[in-house]
Amino acid sequence: MAATNGAKKFLQHILAVAIEGGGFDKTLSKLRIVSGGKGRCIAEMRIEKEHTNRIGVLHGGFTAMLVDAVSTMALRTTEKAVPGISVDISVTYLRAAKTGEEIMINAETLKIGRSLAFLSVDITNKESGALIAKGSHTKFMG
Amino acid sequence: MAATNGAKKFLQHILAVAIEGGGFDKTLSKLRIVSGGKGRCIAEMRIEKEHTNRIGVLHGGFTAMLVDAVSTMALRTTEKAVPGISVDISVTYLRAAKTGEEIMINAETLKIGRSLAFLSVDITNKESGALIAKGSHTKFMG
Amino acid sequence: MAATNGAKKFLQHILAVAIEGGGFDKTLSKLRIVSGGKGRCIAEMRIEKEHTNRIGVLHGGFTAMLVDAVSTMALRTTEKAVPGISVDISVTYLRAAKTGEEIMINAETLKIGRSLAFLSVDITNKESGALIAKGSHTKFMG
Amino acid sequence: MAATNGAKKFLQHILAVAIEGGGFDKTLSKLRIVSGGKGRCIAEMRIEKEHTNRIGVLHGGFTAMLVDAVSTMALRTTEKAVPGISVDISVTYLRAAKTGEEIMINAETLKIGRSLAFLSVDITNKESGALIAKGSHTKFMG
Repeated sequence: MAATNGAKKFLQHILAVAIEGGGFDKTLSKLRIVSGGKGRCIAEMRIEKEHTNRIGVLHGGFTAMLVDAVSTMALRTTEKAVPGISVDISVTYLRAAKTGEEIMINAETLKIGRSLAFLSVDITNKESGALIAKGSHTKFMG
Repeated sequence: MAATNGAKKFLQHILAVAIEGGGFDKTLSKLRIVSGGKGRCIAEMRIEKEHTNRIGVLHGGFTAMLVDAVSTMALRTTEKAVPGISVDISVTYLRAAKTGEEIMINAETLKIGRSLAFLSVDITNKESGALIAKGSHTKFMG
Repeated sequence: MAATNGAKKFLQHILAVAIEGGGFDKTLSKLRIVSGGKGRCIAEMRIEKEHTNRIGVLHGGFTAMLVDAVSTMALRTTEKAVPGISVDISVTYLRAAKTGEEIMINAETLKIGRSLAFLSVDITNKESGALIAKGSHTKFMG
Repeated sequence: MAATNGAKKFLQHILAVAIEGGGFDKTLSKLRIVSGGKGRCIAEMRIEKEHTNRIGVLHGGFTAMLVDAVSTMALRTTEKAVPGISVDISVTYLRAAKTGEEIMINAETLKIGRSLAFLSVDITNKESGALIAKGSHTKFMG
């Protein structure tokens, strides 16, 4: 409870700093942290034009960005707290998601070892729960 | 020659339209088409702050975006010319690339069938040729 | 219940035929179907020497074989019932599993469309539930 | 030359020991080392019934096994010489390969760092050069 609220605030802070930093993370400006802690991070957002491709659906490149960013935030809530370095990311695209849709991004730390962390991400339609994309992210802990 | 110049202009046009479209492709505004045609697309860019993460290196999410976008442009130069729909993207991250570095993105159509297209992308340091990331992209041709 | 028993028998039959066929599926001779149906297949086995590498742990190549085979059996229990053709397989290796360990292989159909099917596989230690490997499998339905 | 012959013999020895070891590597009994050294390994084989699936084409599980095994042999020819531990394997399946076809497996070490090695594998038809499968393998060096 308290721990989870702490983790949520911690993640909101990390996200705000990242967005304000002026790097590629500014593309996350519409992302909202729902909850986090113990290696998990749940975020949500409404798909706007800025996240879409030429045919008005969630851009595959932004989907991959969500996999990367939200899993890294999940990792920050583990005891190690470090962001790590990406080794491998894979994304499977199951369904298109249109402008205006609310999506949930649910990231989980599957395992965190001494050198490597393994993360998994589900992106779903918030209302129906339909799976839009599934991602896998392996990070090196340096 | 003529064909290649035609393909280069075609890709420059596609890229310009995509960037101006106001979607996520606007993150490609610094990308330059070097050459293209027959299922290939070579592009290059200088890494600016807007492409980086909190520690000033190429953001893994933007790397994935480059894999998606440049391979899709490669696909547009095949006879089918259609962009297709992403099925699977995987990216392996080999080396960090810093702000100011010039990178090359070299995308190739490995096979284009009736329903599926298979694409491969190498992202390298332009000067040294060192491999920064390697991507694989499978698309459905609808 | 009845449906699930039917599916289990159906999968046991498919597996037996595959093993007897003399192809690479004979490497599955120790696999036991636990349950199945509605796009799922749960199987288990004891790791024997024949499944291991030089240091006596589950061979990464056999892990990938389990991802391929058990997800394909899961797919056979959907309405379409066809095995499809592999497009992309990715496997993440989280923990070693030793000779003598009992493992569970849990495969799920995430989505089955007109042309493509998306499957996910978890391989865990049967006793502890610890995740050994996680796989993703995309198939073309022809 | 001398170095390459040495590497070829070294790889032939490793392969023979692995096949005789009685583990899953015995499925490689028909594999022949063509050449190797400096992080590379080229092998070839004729597809027999034992490597195929129910419809007589190269089994996707065996394809993944080839990606794993031949890239690991490539890694053994680097200065570090250690086999490492699999972290992520991904395989893209481009073309079916029938019983009787001669295939080549060409594995390359893309980068070997202090902790991680990155390998790439192409499996082609020996005669036509047509790409059958493409694999990516990330290993941890322990």
